[in-house]
Amino acid sequence: MRGLMQDVPLTIDTIFRHAEAHHGDVPIVTNSPTGPTRTTYAEWARRTRRLGGVLDTLGVSADGRVGTFAWNSARHLELYFAVPCTGRVLHTLNVRLFPEQLTYIANHAEDEVVFVDRTVLPLLWPLIDTMPTVRHVVVMDDGGDAEVPDDPRVHDYEELVAAAEPVEFDVRDERSAAAMCYTSGTTGNPKGVVYSHRSTVLHTMAVVAPNGFGIGIDDVAMPVVPMFHANAWGIAQAAPAAGAAMVFPGPMMQPQALADLIVTESVTFTAGVPTIWQGMLPHLAGRPHRLRKIGCGGSAVPPALSRAYEEQVGLPIYQAWGMTETHPVASGGTLARRYDDADAETITAQRARQGIPLFGVEARIVEAGTTDPLPWDDVATGELQVRGPWCAQEYYEADAGTELTTPDGWMKTGDVAAMDAFGSIRIADRTKDLIKSGGEWISSVDLENAIMSHPAVAEAAVVAVPSPKWGERPLACVVLKAGETATEQEILDHVRPQVASWWLPDAVEFIDEVPKTSVGKFSKKDLRARFAEFPATS
Amino acid sequence: MRGLMQDVPLTIDTIFRHAEAHHGDVPIVTNSPTGPTRTTYAEWARRTRRLGGVLDTLGVSADGRVGTFAWNSARHLELYFAVPCTGRVLHTLNVRLFPEQLTYIANHAEDEVVFVDRTVLPLLWPLIDTMPTVRHVVVMDDGGDAEVPDDPRVHDYEELVAAAEPVEFDVRDERSAAAMCYTSGTTGNPKGVVYSHRSTVLHTMAVVAPNGFGIGIDDVAMPVVPMFHANAWGIAQAAPAAGAAMVFPGPMMQPQALADLIVTESVTFTAGVPTIWQGMLPHLAGRPHRLRKIGCGGSAVPPALSRAYEEQVGLPIYQAWGMTETHPVASGGTLARRYDDADAETITAQRARQGIPLFGVEARIVEAGTTDPLPWDDVATGELQVRGPWCAQEYYEADAGTELTTPDGWMKTGDVAAMDAFGSIRIADRTKDLIKSGGEWISSVDLENAIMSHPAVAEAAVVAVPSPKWGERPLACVVLKAGETATEQEILDHVRPQVASWWLPDAVEFIDEVPKTSVGKFSKKDLRARFAEFPATS
Ligand SMILES: Nc1ncnc2c1ncn2[C@@H]1O[C@H](COP(=O)(O)OP(=O)(O)OP(=O)(O)O)[C@@H](O)[C@H]1O
Ligand SMILES: Nc1ncnc2c1ncn2[C@@H]1O[C@H](COP(=O)(O)OP(=O)(O)OP(=O)(O)O)[C@@H](O)[C@H]1O
Ligand SMILES: [Mg+2]
Ligand SMILES: [Mg+2]
Repeated sequence: MRGLMQDVPLTIDTIFRHAEAHHGDVPIVTNSPTGPTRTTYAEWARRTRRLGGVLDTLGVSADGRVGTFAWNSARHLELYFAVPCTGRVLHTLNVRLFPEQLTYIANHAEDEVVFVDRTVLPLLWPLIDTMPTVRHVVVMDDGGDAEVPDDPRVHDYEELVAAAEPVEFDVRDERSAAAMCYTSGTTGNPKGVVYSHRSTVLHTMAVVAPNGFGIGIDDVAMPVVPMFHANAWGIAQAAPAAGAAMVFPGPMMQPQALADLIVTESVTFTAGVPTIWQGMLPHLAGRPHRLRKIGCGGSAVPPALSRAYEEQVGLPIYQAWGMTETHPVASGGTLARRYDDADAETITAQRARQGIPLFGVEARIVEAGTTDPLPWDDVATGELQVRGPWCAQEYYEADAGTELTTPDGWMKTGDVAAMDAFGSIRIADRTKDLIKSGGEWISSVDLENAIMSHPAVAEAAVVAVPSPKWGERPLACVVLKAGETATEQEILDHVRPQVASWWLPDAVEFIDEVPKTSVGKFSKKDLRARFAEFPATS
Repeated sequence: MRGLMQDVPLTIDTIFRHAEAHHGDVPIVTNSPTGPTRTTYAEWARRTRRLGGVLDTLGVSADGRVGTFAWNSARHLELYFAVPCTGRVLHTLNVRLFPEQLTYIANHAEDEVVFVDRTVLPLLWPLIDTMPTVRHVVVMDDGGDAEVPDDPRVHDYEELVAAAEPVEFDVRDERSAAAMCYTSGTTGNPKGVVYSHRSTVLHTMAVVAPNGFGIGIDDVAMPVVPMFHANAWGIAQAAPAAGAAMVFPGPMMQPQALADLIVTESVTFTAGVPTIWQGMLPHLAGRPHRLRKIGCGGSAVPPALSRAYEEQVGLPIYQAWGMTETHPVASGGTLARRYDDADAETITAQRARQGIPLFGVEARIVEAGTTDPLPWDDVATGELQVRGPWCAQEYYEADAGTELTTPDGWMKTGDVAAMDAFGSIRIADRTKDLIKSGGEWISSVDLENAIMSHPAVAEAAVVAVPSPKWGERPLACVVLKAGETATEQEILDHVRPQVASWWLPDAVEFIDEVPKTSVGKFSKKDLRARFAEFPATS
């Protein structure tokens, strides 16, 4: 028997029309070197419809890829909607990628046009001739002072929008492509994920839910997580769908500027990677604010960080886990009522977990290379695999050997995790970052958390170094806080009671900085390369 | 270009598995004449899988209709999932329907089995021979003392569940039928709406959102709105999807019992029709509770009621609008931030509105019989029409003349509304309840609200009576509060300053009770019949 409901597709233009029709007076604020500029969803909607006209004028193909190379801003939000709502495919380029990666990605996606913020134009323009499919570069003046090249390919965003006619949005096929996102490239070359309209709308509804970010009409949402990576964790769709006000940092990504924006704009929800919150803490501590939830993910949230926020900012960090391949939010750490009366230690341990899957995603852990599920006993660890309408099936024109899906239809995450009796996920490590010592696995993340709880330590990254006897042994790379001192022995003494004896790192190397990826994650492939010749001590 | 995301269908078994996997220890409480009984999602899930086996044992066809005739209870929740998750179609029968309507509906849907609470068995059993397709009657002992007939068709629920094997749930087609709901029959014979798995999952995600009911893992949700009508406003799916605890009133629907349950079980979210809240107010006023949101809809929420709750219970009523045909929730009245500093009068007026569409539903008002949209100026009124993936396309085997969809694909609601500049809906009336006087429309709802603000009035219903001169004129039918008095003149004097002079009712009839439909709405078709011969005064 068939359902007899309307066959209305799940497309991004329904989000657009909802904000346009019902939240016209809700503000959108974008920070800039000369201070914040303000608009509303009504004005944004008018401009977005004209931007649809611009894409026609520029001759972008019906499903052409439209690159963006831009900070979080109201203009970027125009692109987030005008591109998919006219049937094209939004391709966000990460402004922090290395030049070779940028070229690789733009060519792989065959971008026809790139919309670029003036502040970052100097990072893109020198590469433009390495991107033969790019026929137009549209410059958005965000207060930068970079010189705009005199070249027939170069256009001014505002001039194009002013000259264009508004268009109707009416996407019919919910499974058509809406956006492409490449992974961070933490483990190798970035891989392209192609979101559909359907997956985007469903992910939006999932993050809006109270167990996700919980975004409603009362909220002021500020995505610190960049719109140029991992779909800004869905916030750029969730806020319009909820009628929440938006605050964009623009190019003003310094911790002080971000903290000020949170305070002055009465931000209630914000989200970003751990390094952001690490840096912002001293600028936010003790100040009056209206924050209700701080979302954090992308890499493990150190318990010490979450505790510091609870003590100094008045609310803990909400940890979410996900991947570019999962849109990206797949699980989140809202605490269940069973922890209502738990002691501080239990609650800290719970907040350090990656939480249970959002409704709509299912998760399992399996023995690597098999489809045999492992028990949910919080001890057994295996590859985390997920399933759901906003999980990727395959990469875009994937390299050989990057099979994403198991024979029984689950997505392989490359993360190693344990799950407790309630299916709460605890990421132990990335498969590629695990240290295999004497045939047993050591979790680099656990060691890092143990080291980072030392008061003198700012950052710690643990990587495998070759050992003739054990195969691999852990090496701790430690950055001390400015003005603090600690010896190798002190660090090891601090870690010893916290881990199994054979987990203890063979050595501690004091370094000036942990190398980071384009999105601020520890780049262990760089550390491994640097210490590949490290003299074995055991 | 195609999206490259997993093709995972939106089916109700994903809700089931989410609650089973991640919220096993969350309590489900059902009230009964002998006090509350308690279970958990884990136990519920085990039983629900066995109940799937029961449906096989009973020989219910692959997409057979499974009737329920039951109060809100954990067992009813088992049926809500076992039936659609095995591919069958849940058909909730309203225990308050008139016998002829019950027979009509069960035959129209061709129910193969009916699951019935023992307390209401005496209402169903005498009709059983008028329902030839019903081969089994399964009695759920909810503490009632009705005699269970000795008949081969009759089974005991617990015996069947105990004897059955658990089954796997794996629905593949999201557009297949999941449930049937018949409309209240306020305006004629009930009409059958067929929900799909897809529409159910999307409606679930919509009501979970903060702008809907906002249900999360911290909540204790108590649907007072019956599971036997209008899909319990989606709460029976939303709570498991959110991991919220559930509290079911069972047959204990007396205001005192409901209020006690809210207090003793720490209910945080509840929902029901206005008459429920009207009756419960004295029992809830001044008591300690943990309520966060009270949902109300099904008919207009009198401003006086919402104000009384704010004053005496400490939180206003959240008004939602919808229809069986919209699953049922389509719009809701969460106030936008523009009303943050509004005066009390403005806020009362806003709360009296039916609010803006939930994200996913679009609404318009049109000149009756056309597809010409009317302006959103809060003055123009026309037929409200909606569109979205949880709006019905057509009725199940509809009678001639019940066309639900316009030529351009919008659902006709039969409600007359105005919309303000932000698309907030203000229902003026049902098309069939409007009073046409001298060629102009008078809203019965507005007159009722004006009358009900008189301190001596308990209930008021205004209906059209024939007038030789004007076509129709309004007649006010008024129920006074116990122990209060008021004259016709006093009522009219109270109303006069609130409405246009030609709206003033021709007469006031004092009656003992407003006749109600099976779901507690004013049954104006009954009042119209009673006063059809009312002597014309103008
Ligand atoms: N809350 C979290 N805790 C621990 N790790 C996390 C968390 N959230 C995300 N991650 C890590 O980030 C990964 C997803 O990151 P992303 O999609 O940005 O690219 P990447 O995996 O870093 O890069 P690449 O796949 O190109 O190597 C996850 O697979 C996981 O390893
Ligand atoms: N918040 C509300 N304010 C005013 N009216 C409401 C509200 N919510 C629902 N309604 C009314 O209830 C109707 C939907 O009710 P339901 O689907 O239960 O059946 P019914 O319309 O009463 O019965 P039938 O269609 O069989 O005559 C709406 O069309 C509207 O008239
Ligand atoms: Mg990855
Ligand atoms: Mg109706």
